[in-house]
Amino acid sequence: MPSKSPVIVDLKFIPREVEDGLKGAFTGREVFNLADPAHKGRDLSGIDYAVVWKSDPDLFSRAPDLKVVFSGGAGVDHVLTLPGLPDVPLVRFVDRSLTTRMSEWVMMNCLLHLRQHSAYETRARAHVWEDLSQPEAADITVGVMGLGVLGLDAIRKLGVMGFKTIGWSRSKKAIDGVETFAGEELDAFLARTDFLVGLLPLTAETKAMFNSALFSKLSRNGPFGAPVFINGGRGGSQVGADIVTALESGTLGGASLDVFEQEPLAKDSPFWDMENVYITPHVAASSDVKALFVHVEQQMARFESGLPLEYLVDRKAGY
Amino acid sequence: MPSKSPVIVDLKFIPREVEDGLKGAFTGREVFNLADPAHKGRDLSGIDYAVVWKSDPDLFSRAPDLKVVFSGGAGVDHVLTLPGLPDVPLVRFVDRSLTTRMSEWVMMNCLLHLRQHSAYETRARAHVWEDLSQPEAADITVGVMGLGVLGLDAIRKLGVMGFKTIGWSRSKKAIDGVETFAGEELDAFLARTDFLVGLLPLTAETKAMFNSALFSKLSRNGPFGAPVFINGGRGGSQVGADIVTALESGTLGGASLDVFEQEPLAKDSPFWDMENVYITPHVAASSDVKALFVHVEQQMARFESGLPLEYLVDRKAGY
Ligand SMILES: NC(=O)c1ccc[n+]([C@@H]2O[C@H](COP(=O)([O-])OP(=O)(O)OC[C@H]3O[C@@H](n4cnc5c(N)ncnc54)[C@H](OP(=O)(O)O)[C@@H]3O)[C@@H](O)[C@H]2O)c1
Ligand SMILES: NC(=O)c1ccc[n+]([C@@H]2O[C@H](COP(=O)([O-])OP(=O)(O)OC[C@H]3O[C@@H](n4cnc5c(N)ncnc54)[C@H](OP(=O)(O)O)[C@@H]3O)[C@@H](O)[C@H]2O)c1
Repeated sequence: MPSKSPVIVDLKFIPREVEDGLKGAFTGREVFNLADPAHKGRDLSGIDYAVVWKSDPDLFSRAPDLKVVFSGGAGVDHVLTLPGLPDVPLVRFVDRSLTTRMSEWVMMNCLLHLRQHSAYETRARAHVWEDLSQPEAADITVGVMGLGVLGLDAIRKLGVMGFKTIGWSRSKKAIDGVETFAGEELDAFLARTDFLVGLLPLTAETKAMFNSALFSKLSRNGPFGAPVFINGGRGGSQVGADIVTALESGTLGGASLDVFEQEPLAKDSPFWDMENVYITPHVAASSDVKALFVHVEQQMARFESGLPLEYLVDRKAGY
Repeated sequence: MPSKSPVIVDLKFIPREVEDGLKGAFTGREVFNLADPAHKGRDLSGIDYAVVWKSDPDLFSRAPDLKVVFSGGAGVDHVLTLPGLPDVPLVRFVDRSLTTRMSEWVMMNCLLHLRQHSAYETRARAHVWEDLSQPEAADITVGVMGLGVLGLDAIRKLGVMGFKTIGWSRSKKAIDGVETFAGEELDAFLARTDFLVGLLPLTAETKAMFNSALFSKLSRNGPFGAPVFINGGRGGSQVGADIVTALESGTLGGASLDVFEQEPLAKDSPFWDMENVYITPHVAASSDVKALFVHVEQQMARFESGLPLEYLVDRKAGY
């Protein structure tokens, strides 16, 4: 039996979590964790697999024989633009834990805006005890853009918590109890949306789509008047300057942003200090490293036994 | 047909919401809204019904002929201790909207602690972009104390969001997918609990039960080490000074408090400024005034047609 191909690991995650995750993973294979200085400059030719997240720019020139590339995350926009990405199957990461984590983040942020958390925090800082008029979840329509693995889980849970939910995607979806919109029905969807949740991949079509024009089409009939924008997808889909303007002018009443056009977010970004804006450093749904390696092992086993790979990226669509 | 008895309304809610709620309510009855100065000192004898929340101390001496008292909220501890409360049926408020609102508050606070919100807010204030190690909901056991109308709804929704859930109540409950504990099994329940959610009524038995001794029995095996205390029930069930001590010593890692022994919370209370402590001014589940009046009308109609009243308080048990 020929020995199994090694696997290259180039994941810009928390380094200790990668090391821990590698313990007991990839039995029977050599692992080249590029975070380990021992592998610096090492010959990577002849290796079939790489698991990558924000990988080194020279990775593909150093590893010219890859047969499958695995994305360390659910999104692949910055894998697709890597210099020298070989024309081989690209597998993205789909996982229960990752999906659950994104729904935690979406739910928490919808509830923070619904329950006027920042207004109560302001009062707490001033030691002021004051009851605010409080709509309930059923008074708010949450519109979810992107009804893939993440959007579907989030929309179901938002419904359980009592929010009214509607959804938009490229191809029309049928979801129990949820009114759905597709492609060109975007304006009708926006006109109904009080809290807009972005769970879209970054592609040529979604680039910069969360902009002034879009924000101005959102509903102003909700109990808070101004709509709220919550983005857990990709920063490249939003125009940061337009979000700032919309918040300042009252076109938006609040925002929750996990993703930004430039990451890390610049030290002098206005977002850090804006009222009713919640910022997280691209952590809405971090990949569980152990789960990622289990998924990669499963796909390598399928590949080596001639079965089709799962979760393949459609390079033309860009996701 | 004899004319219907008037109804006294003495609700210390947001006054405008009570006025709005009264529009179109109680058709065919006279309403004495005691917030209206026109009713000051007015004769209230001969009236059958009062809807009360933090009512005036002289209400029952002014209205000696009440046949039913309606609590404006789900809890009745401060109705039961009102001077001169007549020995007539006391009906509490149970309502879909109130239940949903409490679950919103519980869910938001469990997620705030799970997702290390205050740590991320601290970093945002310092303009620091830093990824923290992040457990998922399934790594946390939420223990809910009180499995009544509110506890049952909260525990089900926490389960949907992926939290492990266990529950404790006076009488043993059977809940699908939830391990339950009753009465004397409290210590075993606490030893398993990472996030403790209080949804208990204030009674002789629950008074001051959230104290140092109880906090020291909570699990320290969760991913954050120290447990978290979340109270949406009643302030009288907790010992504020013990919570402060437990937070300072690390016996508790965080807290969310909607209720306090003294409300409004004193201006100089340490809670306002403590790290990883979220304070709200007894607004977790405010009664929807319109829904309250619909419920009161339904119960008056039952009473007048000889049907038994629903949601009756057991005065001996105290809830
Ligand atoms: N912030 C974080 O921590 C984090 C973590 C994980 C993922 N993400 C982001 O979340 C994205 C979504 O993940 P996923 O697993 O749910 O992806 P997915 O399963 O591929 O779903 C993508 C959804 O977006 C829709 N879509 C794509 N292009 C569209 C367009 N031009 N117009 C309308 N709808 C369009 C798709 O429509 P169809 O259903 O018609 O195909 C689909 O419903 C990822 O691509 C990633 O960028 C962020
Ligand atoms: N913060 C807010 O805005 C807000 C709003 C609404 C309500 N509340 C509070 O929430 C409380 C609960 O409301 P609810 O509608 O869920 O009440 P409920 O339906 O009467 O349920 C009370 C639960 O507590 C349990 N319990 C009572 N005494 C106990 C004891 N000594 N030991 C163990 N368990 C005990 C009961 O056990 P059994 O099941 O065995 O009877 C029951 O499961 C209210 O009483 C009120 O104080 C707060």
